[in-house]
Amino acid sequence: MIIAYDGSRFLGWQKTRTGPSIQEELEKALEPFSDVPIQPEAASRTDRGVHAKGQVVCFKAKKSLHPYQLQRALNSRLCQDIRVQSIEEVTSCFHPTLDALSKEYHYWICSGPVQMPMYRYYSWHVPYLLDLPAMRQAALHFYGTHDFSAFSHKQTEDANRTIEKLEIEIFEQTRLRIALRGDRFLYKMARSIVGTLVYVGRHKIAPDSIPLVLASRQRQVAAVTAPGHGLFLMEVFYQKDDEIATQKCGTSVTIRP
Amino acid sequence: MIIAYDGSRFLGWQKTRTGPSIQEELEKALEPFSDVPIQPEAASRTDRGVHAKGQVVCFKAKKSLHPYQLQRALNSRLCQDIRVQSIEEVTSCFHPTLDALSKEYHYWICSGPVQMPMYRYYSWHVPYLLDLPAMRQAALHFYGTHDFSAFSHKQTEDANRTIEKLEIEIFEQTRLRIALRGDRFLYKMARSIVGTLVYVGRHKIAPDSIPLVLASRQRQVAAVTAPGHGLFLMEVFYQKDDEIATQKCGTSVTIRP
Repeated sequence: MIIAYDGSRFLGWQKTRTGPSIQEELEKALEPFSDVPIQPEAASRTDRGVHAKGQVVCFKAKKSLHPYQLQRALNSRLCQDIRVQSIEEVTSCFHPTLDALSKEYHYWICSGPVQMPMYRYYSWHVPYLLDLPAMRQAALHFYGTHDFSAFSHKQTEDANRTIEKLEIEIFEQTRLRIALRGDRFLYKMARSIVGTLVYVGRHKIAPDSIPLVLASRQRQVAAVTAPGHGLFLMEVFYQKDDEIATQKCGTSVTIRP
Repeated sequence: MIIAYDGSRFLGWQKTRTGPSIQEELEKALEPFSDVPIQPEAASRTDRGVHAKGQVVCFKAKKSLHPYQLQRALNSRLCQDIRVQSIEEVTSCFHPTLDALSKEYHYWICSGPVQMPMYRYYSWHVPYLLDLPAMRQAALHFYGTHDFSAFSHKQTEDANRTIEKLEIEIFEQTRLRIALRGDRFLYKMARSIVGTLVYVGRHKIAPDSIPLVLASRQRQVAAVTAPGHGLFLMEVFYQKDDEIATQKCGTSVTIRP
């Protein structure tokens, strides 16, 4: 299923003992639709405060219900912060994370002296003038495959990731939208890239120093990590239709999240 | 001053004994800046749940403080739902309502089957397909000066009002924005026009029946009133610079909200 959520009051996707999570809310909503507890899996484990407009979630249900009926039933059981946008049946070999080709995130920033209060939970307030051409110049250095260790909060053996898109657009004079698309993202990688671009915009880092930061592979060389509440998971991209099924199961079943 | 607010948790602009209001919050924030209680006046008395991006508020303060310092002081005293965007000194004969030439409101609608949860406090969810060309055709009938009694919740002697702009735009496939600009709005007039346009979009009213509804002067002939939380006061327009001052006080002082 494709779900959207306002992450403001959640500790993130992942179920935890310390507070509310999207995963737990879905688990509770799915309860009547199986005899055993359903553990939904998501394409992206979004962090605390992060929102989603196109999160892909997968689960196995025993009781067969028409997807549209199930969607309606879930939306009536779920809190208003989480909405199921659509549900489709997929082959049992489909995996929301492993089969994903790429993901797109949007990060919103308000760069004016005062932020509109209706954006306060959905955008990072940076009360400085930001040099947009410098930020766009810096963004170009991220394109392609690099070792992104300097932009991750966790050490991993293989930190090679590919950025396919990093575009900055401006709306209503002071609202910046940074669109990031890549194959897989390291822990807090999107927000670390955004934090660095903001430092470039504030003239604290030169746009052309990005290759050096990447080469350092040290987190402390890159700038701040942008807060979670400006980030939106927009879309997860998969192979076309029946390709996954034919490759993995030898049969052809329509999969189209 | 120009202020913005998220109206979600307020009963409206007007101070009331039954719950929180924007006016009361501002009164409390302004307390240290005068020996007598300051009663701020607004260009538009927005209703419960209605938001503002460009509300104009006027007040008399005894203590002279630099406008920028006052803005910072107020923003640090106010709750996060209300932000002062700018402050300017005006001549004492300026009146935020009486001197306004026109006001612009935006109304947001989500017409898809499921609304994105992050828009739930800022947009009306209408889970039907809306016929946009029909709504645009209906909108044309509102232009100009008419007796708007059929679109008001209160009886007034002179219900003649002028609509200068009524434009419908669509964003992200299902988000509609209705921009309304007019000289003065009757009580709940903007939301009554929006409710009627939605009925036209659902084919419950013919686009060309709007002149008949206007001519009826009966509230019950027009359709539903759209809820407050989709409405934003965007901007209040005044005469240019020093014209008000010269007309009313005989002196020339810069007034530019």
